[in-house]
Amino acid sequence: MLAAISASARVRGSTSPNPPVGAVVLDAAGAVAGVGATQPPGGPHAEVMALREAGDRARGGTALVTLEPCAHEGRTPPCTDALLRAGVSEVHFAVADPNAVAAGGAAVLRAAGVRVEAGLLAGQVARGPLRAWLHYARTGRPHVTWKYAATLDGRVAAADGSSRWISGAESRAEVHELRAVVDAIAAGTGTVRVDDPQLTARTPDGGLADRQPLRVVVGASEIPATSRVLDGVAETVRIRSHDPDTVLVQLAARGVVDVLLEGGPRLAGAFAEAGRIDRILAYVAPTLLGSGPAALGNAGVSTITEAHRWTVEGVTMSGGDVRISAVPARVTGGS
Amino acid sequence: MLAAISASARVRGSTSPNPPVGAVVLDAAGAVAGVGATQPPGGPHAEVMALREAGDRARGGTALVTLEPCAHEGRTPPCTDALLRAGVSEVHFAVADPNAVAAGGAAVLRAAGVRVEAGLLAGQVARGPLRAWLHYARTGRPHVTWKYAATLDGRVAAADGSSRWISGAESRAEVHELRAVVDAIAAGTGTVRVDDPQLTARTPDGGLADRQPLRVVVGASEIPATSRVLDGVAETVRIRSHDPDTVLVQLAARGVVDVLLEGGPRLAGAFAEAGRIDRILAYVAPTLLGSGPAALGNAGVSTITEAHRWTVEGVTMSGGDVRISAVPARVTGGS
Ligand SMILES: NC(=O)c1ccc[n+]([C@@H]2O[C@H](COP(=O)([O-])OP(=O)(O)OC[C@H]3O[C@@H](n4cnc5c(N)ncnc54)[C@H](OP(=O)(O)O)[C@@H]3O)[C@@H](O)[C@H]2O)c1
Ligand SMILES: NC(=O)c1ccc[n+]([C@@H]2O[C@H](COP(=O)([O-])OP(=O)(O)OC[C@H]3O[C@@H](n4cnc5c(N)ncnc54)[C@H](OP(=O)(O)O)[C@@H]3O)[C@@H](O)[C@H]2O)c1
Repeated sequence: MLAAISASARVRGSTSPNPPVGAVVLDAAGAVAGVGATQPPGGPHAEVMALREAGDRARGGTALVTLEPCAHEGRTPPCTDALLRAGVSEVHFAVADPNAVAAGGAAVLRAAGVRVEAGLLAGQVARGPLRAWLHYARTGRPHVTWKYAATLDGRVAAADGSSRWISGAESRAEVHELRAVVDAIAAGTGTVRVDDPQLTARTPDGGLADRQPLRVVVGASEIPATSRVLDGVAETVRIRSHDPDTVLVQLAARGVVDVLLEGGPRLAGAFAEAGRIDRILAYVAPTLLGSGPAALGNAGVSTITEAHRWTVEGVTMSGGDVRISAVPARVTGGS
Repeated sequence: MLAAISASARVRGSTSPNPPVGAVVLDAAGAVAGVGATQPPGGPHAEVMALREAGDRARGGTALVTLEPCAHEGRTPPCTDALLRAGVSEVHFAVADPNAVAAGGAAVLRAAGVRVEAGLLAGQVARGPLRAWLHYARTGRPHVTWKYAATLDGRVAAADGSSRWISGAESRAEVHELRAVVDAIAAGTGTVRVDDPQLTARTPDGGLADRQPLRVVVGASEIPATSRVLDGVAETVRIRSHDPDTVLVQLAARGVVDVLLEGGPRLAGAFAEAGRIDRILAYVAPTLLGSGPAALGNAGVSTITEAHRWTVEGVTMSGGDVRISAVPARVTGGS
């Protein structure tokens, strides 16, 4: 299953709106016969890729898949058919498919006499490569990661607006890796005007990564025609709304499942207030500014008891910076 | 040496302006014969306490001390005399005494034929129980730890000024433990007026800890006579200056070596600008406010290249909060 997770991580960002799934097929003796991952939309699913590589060796073998195999005819035939035709005798999957149309794969396989086990490394898959897609499958909304780089005193720029660089080289390299596997990066017109970011995924040598996310500029006002987001090296869309849900509906319509919200404070505040941030990724640099804009603008909170509550899911160092990952705190009756 | 460090940690806060030192005496066979730590000013030093407990068993034995034994006559006779009189044949100490008057203990012992080794667990001692005193011995200024509790977006209070509680119960309990081992806690008149903090060290059940630090209110303006810092349960001083160095000189004159600066943003900004913060202890709660005062006020920085630079020395979880400890980044030609 770890090999299947690795295979799925490698295709993250290229499969939306389909899930980045990984699959490994073992032969009857338990040796790896094939490894596969979801191909871009319209292409084969992970199971089919792994079965193709395994060929006849799949017969009597075991398939390990990060997501429950689909049982419905979409742009491609159901994966359960392929597994049955290949003659595998066991299927282990990590996470059940929350999608009502596709679900039922486990039942179809069991009915055909295949031994099916669910839940192997489910947490690792659900928090890892399938996180955004599972959120999307459950809510219909793209998954939003708010990423920001702030000083210890919570500033995202100095008093004069300068912000290059708040975080260190390692953190910035990590963000470029993340940009290369999301579907879209969003920023407000304010950030575009002040920072003129390119919003592309770049390699450490400054070159463009192979995959580029959709660039999204949110806000009604015009941005300079010379803005780097308009340089044509990747696609850019303008969304002239202040409503996070309108933004997300428009992105979902374009097949976007995984969004990186890169600020600034006003846009992030609006998303926080609407409860439309699904993960926070904060790079906190050990510097102090004492003035300049705070990481988050108005989020509808006026007193301490109204604070938006989160749960830290991980803290690591990223070079000299502290990297904090947080998810919404579970409240009674919801998540 | 670990036992000596533990012994020193237990007397932290009760020895200033003397260093909290720990000592262990082993007999000739290597068994622990005595453990001691510095007594309150005027009382015996750690070596003497450990030798008293060891009695005759010290002869031919080894003394392990966190700080180089003193060789000068102060309020108490030199510790080197006591070690020689007891007949120990080896002395291991962690950190050399930076104090010019007292230094030379190692040389005195060696001249008398004692085997002397320096440096054992020196880093642990210098970053641990002796940290504040070593800073004070080197600079003549009390060591300042700026402690604050902020949200992920760097706020220390909500828009309406409410700030109870930003950090969780574990973090607050930890701060009370820290208060019990420092010499003084400082806050500005602004914090006293808005939060009306008691600035005492309390136990988890809300009772007063055995030791109380000096409470220090900085600023020229009056504070209400009903302020809790004036409740008489611990000593409180007013320092009517805006100059961090004046504050530190007045505190040093009172024998204060270790200060906890508990805000607020304006006072902390003044200390940061003056380079008079020696350690940052940040409790970052996973909450978002989007408005309200930032952790640090004006610190003389107007553009990003002027940011005050720090180095993270430790990150841990404190309940659900992230606890970040940082020290000034070393710059070429100084520290
Ligand atoms: N360190 C970091 O991680 C980081 C990241 C990004 C930005 N920044 C800093 O942030 C600063 C820019 O701040 P900013 O707040 O102006 O940037 P912003 O949030 O990117 O842009 C603000 C604009 O977003 C639009 N917008 C969309 N929805 C909105 C809503 N619901 N409410 C309000 N506005 C909404 C508005 O555009 P229209 O007025 O056009 O309608 C608004 O003017 C710069 O100094 C930049 O350096 C730092
Ligand atoms: N979460 C936390 O960790 C935490 C901790 C403390 C405070 N707070 C929050 O901080 C807010 C209070 O902020 P604040 O900035 O007013 O508090 P403050 O820094 O405690 O007090 C400000 C006062 O400090 C005095 N001061 C001394 N030296 C100064 C200097 N060099 N420059 C300027 N002032 C100097 C001035 O007093 P005079 O005017 O009397 O001369 C000034 O008015 C409250 O909302 C409180 O809740 C939060």
